[in-house]
Amino acid sequence: MSQLLSTAPYRGTRDFLPAEMSVRLQVFQRLYECIERYGFVRYDGPVLEPAEIYEAKSGREIADQQLYTLTDRGGRRLALRPEMTPSVARMIAASAGQLQFPVRWYCNVNCHRYERPQRGRVREHWQINVDTFGADSPACEMEFFELIHDMMAAVGGQRDMYVLRVNDRILLEGILTEIVGIPAPGIRDVSSIIDRWEKYPRETLAAQASSLGVTEAQFTQLETALKAGEDIVADLSAEVRERSQIAPVLASDARDLITFDPLIVRAFEYYTSTVFEVFDTDPANSRSLFGGGRYSNLTGLFSHEQIPGFGFGMGDVTLFDFLDAHGLLPTPRNDIDVAVIPLDVDLDSPARDIARHLRGAGYRVSTPLTQRKLGKELARADKAGADAVVIIGPQDWRTATVAVRDLRTGEQATIAVNDVVSAVQRIVGRQPTN
Amino acid sequence: MSQLLSTAPYRGTRDFLPAEMSVRLQVFQRLYECIERYGFVRYDGPVLEPAEIYEAKSGREIADQQLYTLTDRGGRRLALRPEMTPSVARMIAASAGQLQFPVRWYCNVNCHRYERPQRGRVREHWQINVDTFGADSPACEMEFFELIHDMMAAVGGQRDMYVLRVNDRILLEGILTEIVGIPAPGIRDVSSIIDRWEKYPRETLAAQASSLGVTEAQFTQLETALKAGEDIVADLSAEVRERSQIAPVLASDARDLITFDPLIVRAFEYYTSTVFEVFDTDPANSRSLFGGGRYSNLTGLFSHEQIPGFGFGMGDVTLFDFLDAHGLLPTPRNDIDVAVIPLDVDLDSPARDIARHLRGAGYRVSTPLTQRKLGKELARADKAGADAVVIIGPQDWRTATVAVRDLRTGEQATIAVNDVVSAVQRIVGRQPTN
Repeated sequence: MSQLLSTAPYRGTRDFLPAEMSVRLQVFQRLYECIERYGFVRYDGPVLEPAEIYEAKSGREIADQQLYTLTDRGGRRLALRPEMTPSVARMIAASAGQLQFPVRWYCNVNCHRYERPQRGRVREHWQINVDTFGADSPACEMEFFELIHDMMAAVGGQRDMYVLRVNDRILLEGILTEIVGIPAPGIRDVSSIIDRWEKYPRETLAAQASSLGVTEAQFTQLETALKAGEDIVADLSAEVRERSQIAPVLASDARDLITFDPLIVRAFEYYTSTVFEVFDTDPANSRSLFGGGRYSNLTGLFSHEQIPGFGFGMGDVTLFDFLDAHGLLPTPRNDIDVAVIPLDVDLDSPARDIARHLRGAGYRVSTPLTQRKLGKELARADKAGADAVVIIGPQDWRTATVAVRDLRTGEQATIAVNDVVSAVQRIVGRQPTN
Repeated sequence: MSQLLSTAPYRGTRDFLPAEMSVRLQVFQRLYECIERYGFVRYDGPVLEPAEIYEAKSGREIADQQLYTLTDRGGRRLALRPEMTPSVARMIAASAGQLQFPVRWYCNVNCHRYERPQRGRVREHWQINVDTFGADSPACEMEFFELIHDMMAAVGGQRDMYVLRVNDRILLEGILTEIVGIPAPGIRDVSSIIDRWEKYPRETLAAQASSLGVTEAQFTQLETALKAGEDIVADLSAEVRERSQIAPVLASDARDLITFDPLIVRAFEYYTSTVFEVFDTDPANSRSLFGGGRYSNLTGLFSHEQIPGFGFGMGDVTLFDFLDAHGLLPTPRNDIDVAVIPLDVDLDSPARDIARHLRGAGYRVSTPLTQRKLGKELARADKAGADAVVIIGPQDWRTATVAVRDLRTGEQATIAVNDVVSAVQRIVGRQPTN
């Protein structure tokens, strides 16, 4: 006998068996409906992409550490997409001539990253990407902030379970130059210290800042500014506020949707103005659920036409961890509505007929493929979540009747075969879900 | 200025822009609903799998020609799944202890094969896989045949557009041994000639048969037997008919669902009894749309427990080609139901309020992100398929009214802002689709 192969999926990837899949599909469906109510339309694209679309920004060496790459027989270097943004930028650049901007697009795609598997870090994850292309007004930001709260509500999230922390690179730059007095060439390095602000003790941050030439007085000023919240915006020049996407949001009725937070920097090179992250407020689980922002030139790798974008990617692992931690996971949907059980193999044909009529009425119906022991089939129907069973016995069948049982109450009635659909409708008590 | 990268997807892969994606999603949704009405439940699994699960059957050299493979930093050889059957066999073997057989599972997954791109041959395709595990009675076959006709009907296919050709390896073996008199060791080679029956002229086939030791008389007998249709089954021994899965189907009222056809062989090594293919009947397009069959030991690579399976995989390329050729592609869904158009930037906030109420009622609603020129916004709303627009003008707004326009009739009425949702409901004339 040959050696058996392992039944485990490749490390960092996941099998989704039907019960878990049902939970995922319900959550995704609620999110899709919510996203579509804002006029976003769904697209999709390939898993394999030319490797250079990822290497252009980050350099080949860095990309190699996270990318799954391969070379085809034509010598073409390919990568499994680690994220959707370069793909969608490619598609937008390719179709820009036919599109009427702004466009609102979304997708739900699997992405691969070579990561050490640990909580929240898998090698294949699914990501809902929501983006608007060709809009540079703060109305775009406001729409997204409202959408994010709607998406959280759609999956059961309450406003006290998460916080939407928003920054604007333009405001941050204004704080650093106009208030703290950091010269322009130092902005990037000081920003990356701010990105680590919540992860390191004060002394470490102060030492790092000092090594960049930030004085002790400047560091104290920086600390004060970062703690000031949105009040700091009023201290910035009109020129900075006018370039900003977030200053107008803070001055509008959309202000209550967000928490202005200059600590949100995000590492990606794309973002040019607004950046945001949604954090779980549970102290035991305090981390970023997802985030995104604005990029002034999304399609630069592919086109000389400058197309601004705004969007985010919501990963499935953190999303489902959040739902699980807050008790918000839906229960798996039942597998069937009705089981039709013939008590004899000669009754398979009428069973198929009855099942066909029930399916025609929209119900999900099973008939037995193997044994026909009533007790076992009833237990099976119950486990599959059926509301009703139709039992076809040889005795009844001679008078063209069947037994219809309500599995929730246990009540059973003898019904003329022509009335089975309406008898089932009375029991299931709702329109078929499909 | 740096050199621009190509906007084309990797050869043999496809971008699905929203209009095409909408068509696909509608077709898939109809198929899912149909499949679920038979009690099948959806699952999913990883794109990356250990390469050996594909190489075990076909040998490493053959696998290398079609497989996209890569090696991770731990030296693990991986492949992008070229099909779903080994993955689902792995999952079934892994979870057999918790499952109550038979189980009905389906999925819709992307698979990768290194193919020369040509019509119907892409390198990444999507495949709906539908399988039942743990059932070996012909009731399983009958259920699948009925399901296949329902699936074809669900996407608009008529019975004269396709034919469901079914064979049984056990019956074919019976024909070859009992009727033609081929000795057992020759069965496999002669079967592979039958597999090529429709592709080659008689002389070629006869010469190939002759080289296997088939006499001219035997070849003539074979020709007659293959043309006899299901009548041939009565000439086989009771022993063969009893082992067969298809003889009982031909003797039942499910017989009308299929065309018995001993020319259907299928190359895969898995199949042990029933094999079938659905063919387009259009002579200009006559080819196999999809197919499948029965395997007596699906999980053999992973488990000593023998679990029979029956199933098929329906690829998206041939499916959508069929629908296109027969004029059955649905039209893309509209992007939005309602556009809310404020005529002044000061009216953005009430526009968001009205949009929020309409979304709360389930409608897909857009508000402008850039320009606010009424003519352009109306044209945009029309192009997006909106049924209604809500126009917020400064004059009206002072009296808390808005204009609601029916885009199909052009009729427009001034409505109190509190009555906007009901005014839109009257125009859209249907419940929201979400």
